[in-house]
Amino acid sequence: MPDSLLLEVFPTPSKTPFTIEHISDEFTSVCPVTGHPDFGSIELLYQPAETCVELKSLKLYYQSFRNEGIFYEAVTNQIRDDLVQCMNPTWLQIKTVWKGRGGIRSVVTATFGDVPSQS
Amino acid sequence: MPDSLLLEVFPTPSKTPFTIEHISDEFTSVCPVTGHPDFGSIELLYQPAETCVELKSLKLYYQSFRNEGIFYEAVTNQIRDDLVQCMNPTWLQIKTVWKGRGGIRSVVTATFGDVPSQS
Amino acid sequence: MPDSLLLEVFPTPSKTPFTIEHISDEFTSVCPVTGHPDFGSIELLYQPAETCVELKSLKLYYQSFRNEGIFYEAVTNQIRDDLVQCMNPTWLQIKTVWKGRGGIRSVVTATFGDVPSQS
Amino acid sequence: MPDSLLLEVFPTPSKTPFTIEHISDEFTSVCPVTGHPDFGSIELLYQPAETCVELKSLKLYYQSFRNEGIFYEAVTNQIRDDLVQCMNPTWLQIKTVWKGRGGIRSVVTATFGDVPSQS
Amino acid sequence: MPDSLLLEVFPTPSKTPFTIEHISDEFTSVCPVTGHPDFGSIELLYQPAETCVELKSLKLYYQSFRNEGIFYEAVTNQIRDDLVQCMNPTWLQIKTVWKGRGGIRSVVTATFGDVPSQS
Amino acid sequence: MPDSLLLEVFPTPSKTPFTIEHISDEFTSVCPVTGHPDFGSIELLYQPAETCVELKSLKLYYQSFRNEGIFYEAVTNQIRDDLVQCMNPTWLQIKTVWKGRGGIRSVVTATFGDVPSQS
Amino acid sequence: MPDSLLLEVFPTPSKTPFTIEHISDEFTSVCPVTGHPDFGSIELLYQPAETCVELKSLKLYYQSFRNEGIFYEAVTNQIRDDLVQCMNPTWLQIKTVWKGRGGIRSVVTATFGDVPSQS
Amino acid sequence: MPDSLLLEVFPTPSKTPFTIEHISDEFTSVCPVTGHPDFGSIELLYQPAETCVELKSLKLYYQSFRNEGIFYEAVTNQIRDDLVQCMNPTWLQIKTVWKGRGGIRSVVTATFGDVPSQS
Amino acid sequence: MPDSLLLEVFPTPSKTPFTIEHISDEFTSVCPVTGHPDFGSIELLYQPAETCVELKSLKLYYQSFRNEGIFYEAVTNQIRDDLVQCMNPTWLQIKTVWKGRGGIRSVVTATFGDVPSQS
Amino acid sequence: MPDSLLLEVFPTPSKTPFTIEHISDEFTSVCPVTGHPDFGSIELLYQPAETCVELKSLKLYYQSFRNEGIFYEAVTNQIRDDLVQCMNPTWLQIKTVWKGRGGIRSVVTATFGDVPSQS
Repeated sequence: MPDSLLLEVFPTPSKTPFTIEHISDEFTSVCPVTGHPDFGSIELLYQPAETCVELKSLKLYYQSFRNEGIFYEAVTNQIRDDLVQCMNPTWLQIKTVWKGRGGIRSVVTATFGDVPSQS
Repeated sequence: MPDSLLLEVFPTPSKTPFTIEHISDEFTSVCPVTGHPDFGSIELLYQPAETCVELKSLKLYYQSFRNEGIFYEAVTNQIRDDLVQCMNPTWLQIKTVWKGRGGIRSVVTATFGDVPSQS
Repeated sequence: MPDSLLLEVFPTPSKTPFTIEHISDEFTSVCPVTGHPDFGSIELLYQPAETCVELKSLKLYYQSFRNEGIFYEAVTNQIRDDLVQCMNPTWLQIKTVWKGRGGIRSVVTATFGDVPSQS
Repeated sequence: MPDSLLLEVFPTPSKTPFTIEHISDEFTSVCPVTGHPDFGSIELLYQPAETCVELKSLKLYYQSFRNEGIFYEAVTNQIRDDLVQCMNPTWLQIKTVWKGRGGIRSVVTATFGDVPSQS
Repeated sequence: MPDSLLLEVFPTPSKTPFTIEHISDEFTSVCPVTGHPDFGSIELLYQPAETCVELKSLKLYYQSFRNEGIFYEAVTNQIRDDLVQCMNPTWLQIKTVWKGRGGIRSVVTATFGDVPSQS
Repeated sequence: MPDSLLLEVFPTPSKTPFTIEHISDEFTSVCPVTGHPDFGSIELLYQPAETCVELKSLKLYYQSFRNEGIFYEAVTNQIRDDLVQCMNPTWLQIKTVWKGRGGIRSVVTATFGDVPSQS
Repeated sequence: MPDSLLLEVFPTPSKTPFTIEHISDEFTSVCPVTGHPDFGSIELLYQPAETCVELKSLKLYYQSFRNEGIFYEAVTNQIRDDLVQCMNPTWLQIKTVWKGRGGIRSVVTATFGDVPSQS
Repeated sequence: MPDSLLLEVFPTPSKTPFTIEHISDEFTSVCPVTGHPDFGSIELLYQPAETCVELKSLKLYYQSFRNEGIFYEAVTNQIRDDLVQCMNPTWLQIKTVWKGRGGIRSVVTATFGDVPSQS
Repeated sequence: MPDSLLLEVFPTPSKTPFTIEHISDEFTSVCPVTGHPDFGSIELLYQPAETCVELKSLKLYYQSFRNEGIFYEAVTNQIRDDLVQCMNPTWLQIKTVWKGRGGIRSVVTATFGDVPSQS
Repeated sequence: MPDSLLLEVFPTPSKTPFTIEHISDEFTSVCPVTGHPDFGSIELLYQPAETCVELKSLKLYYQSFRNEGIFYEAVTNQIRDDLVQCMNPTWLQIKTVWKGRGGIRSVVTATFGDVPSQS
């Protein structure tokens, strides 16, 4: 099940503001109603304050959703909340892009903080 | 015929504003003049207030247009009005993208509310 | 329901063998089990003998499947049989390309006669 | 020759502002200098006020340029003026996209009214 | 109207067999039934024997179909016959690729001679 | 774990040979060495003899690999063997297309029977 | 060598502001250091004031760079200056897009005047 | 190892502000943890003040990272700092686009100065 | 002018047959009739016998056509003949792919020797 | 430097013939003449006899070319020979696809054994 304790951070290497994007094309969880798997991409875009999320720990955190029954909207908000809590970034956006179910594709976008003026 | 009673909602899982997009590539209705079928995509993008539209109910609602004789412009405005009435969202946009008729492709876009500052 | 009487033919304009391909990207029928609509493309490729199928009649024939409950495999074989019966071509191939259902896209291909040596 | 009397309109189906786009990929006219045909696309995007242009009448209007000797810039401005006169829209944009001549592709864009705040 | 006398040839520059392909993306004729214009591409592929078709004369020949009412199948066979008569090539293939009419795209292919073993 | 008993068949609707392709873009299993998930597509192409595989049962069968530790080559051969045993087709091909691991993408292809002359 | 006298203009056909884009994919000059040819595209976008540049004269002007030894940055600024001088437009932008040299692709963009509010 | 002394500049050829983009698709460095190579693209976009970076020296500077163990975030900030120091531009942006590691692709973007109003 | 003496070869590094393809996207010559430049790609594919063509010498050889007035068909046959003479390969194919002139794109293909059984 | 001892194999999991393709998009070596790095993809396609190459060992083997000065043709033939020696496959093909140098892209293809009849 989703485990935010898997997330690790490291100090940002620069005082000057910059942005980081990590795109995972291999996310899967389970529909809580039908029990069928959902597949999608998770696009994380953020401007770090003091710390950056470590890439391998992010991968393991995403994998912890593999057999969790959870809706699109809830996945997106939970990932935002977990990452905000562990990194406390200046700005952060999570976009989840889901493959079609019944002929309908979905995208859910959640953000934290004010859009940085330069990115 | 189009039946807005098919639409169901569920409470939004987060107080923090976020946006949801559902793209249906399998919409069809009928031209009221020629009787020939029209084919298109329906792109729904919205920022929920209190409720979100349930995905399967959205699919059934779209299918209820299958044998309805109705123009592009009317389909788009009706879907906007029906979804606004059932969800009462902060902001909502419907874009219908139609395959060509007589060598002309069409896109109709209708919105409700003010564009959210962060999406 | 599917109506092969809608199909009309005209005499082929040349004695020299040639091939004709008609691709319809706007085919829809209904799944006989779930009642949900299926969407796909129908690719017809053939070498005429004495007659060619008239294009508008072909469109109307395809439209007659709109509310028919019928499986992918049956649609494909029925279209082949109906077209072979009305045109009696030298060679004919029907390929139906279906949008995904439950994450699986499908293609069904049926042919009649021997592949022409030059096309 | 170009005939703006071919254009017909119908009342807009909604009081709420919305936008309509019609893209014709099959436009042709004639170069007034060389006599060779020009080929291009006409992209019409507008926000209706009281009326919308009827789609079939738009097709016939475009076809009336078929054998007219006229430059890219003049075609674009004439179509804008004719459509503005017949529809009197809130906002309108015509973009003509021309295939290459002598290795140079061209795009001409003409607008009417102020860009709507929401489209 | 189509005028095969516009076609000019020049002697092939090499005794060794080779192939030439000319692709015109700007072909238009008229549907003899509806009077609406048809748009398509003409792909000519051939292996010359003694002569090659001159490029500008080919363009003018194609333009001579501009206001001719003629079906897809007839256009294709007439172009093959006209080019075979003027060049007498070792092998020749004409493929006409038509934009959609009523949601159906078409391709017609006509050939002359035996496929060359090396091309 | 993989369960071939999930597979169901139905009688082929035509005596005339034809081919069927099912492409699943949502396959996942687990690397038996690292424990990390593998993601890929499964392309099944076959010519039925007496029976066809039922689409929903195929989806459930593929899902039964979700938490199985198994190599690319073994997955491919097992799926071929299971499908051949349940359908006994005239010809069958399984192609598994895997997303990259360590910068290397892989494709494994296994077949059964002789390639049909017409597909 | 580059010859701005080749450029010709004609009066703009409309008082209403509009924009014109000419994209030439067939530009070549010579690297002044190595003597090797450079290849690129020239994208000209402008809003005319009183005059428009004539298309054929623009082609000949671009061709006059063919054997000129000149750097990317200098080509871009010279074309901007020559076109501004001959047309005196309201606004003008030149973007030169160069194929790779030593694994590095380059784009240089120069402008004149204030960006028009509506284009 | 990375050597900023490789960077050379030349005077900007124009007083009028303009922008330059250099895209290198052939960047490689080494992961300091695993020792495996990283591959990516470096997109440099800047508005010069007094000087421009010389293209061949930029290529050699990028090559000096080839066997350096360094993280994505550090590479990006170091290149920004080195280029700012040698050119002192009006504005500069570095975007590094990395191929996937463990199924996650990354983009890091660092900037210097205020976004120019016209580019 | 075209200079085959620029071509240099080196001994093939393997006795086992293999194939080599060099694709140059930056070829230009001049139309002998209009004096306008022609642009295209040259695709060379061959199976070496004793020697391979050296890459830099091939580039200089292609550049020697830059200001030569020569037709598509003649360029193609001359390059084939020059390369066959200098390398004496087992098999060789030259394909020249030309950008459009008057709306017609062209491809000319010339070969030498028998197609190798394994490539 | 290239080290074939890095390659490891495992027994093929099936007696029935099948094919395996591994595509590495992250190959780099060094030009022995200029010292500049070369970048490309290595496409390995083979039909195993008794053993398959282990994927991680293949990655490390490819990485051992990183700082080796070696020509395109030699890389391709050496990889074929090393893999044939360690696996002794029924059939094997190596295709190396190189990014452009001086405007010329290259592909080198080497094979071992007879093409399998079914893949």
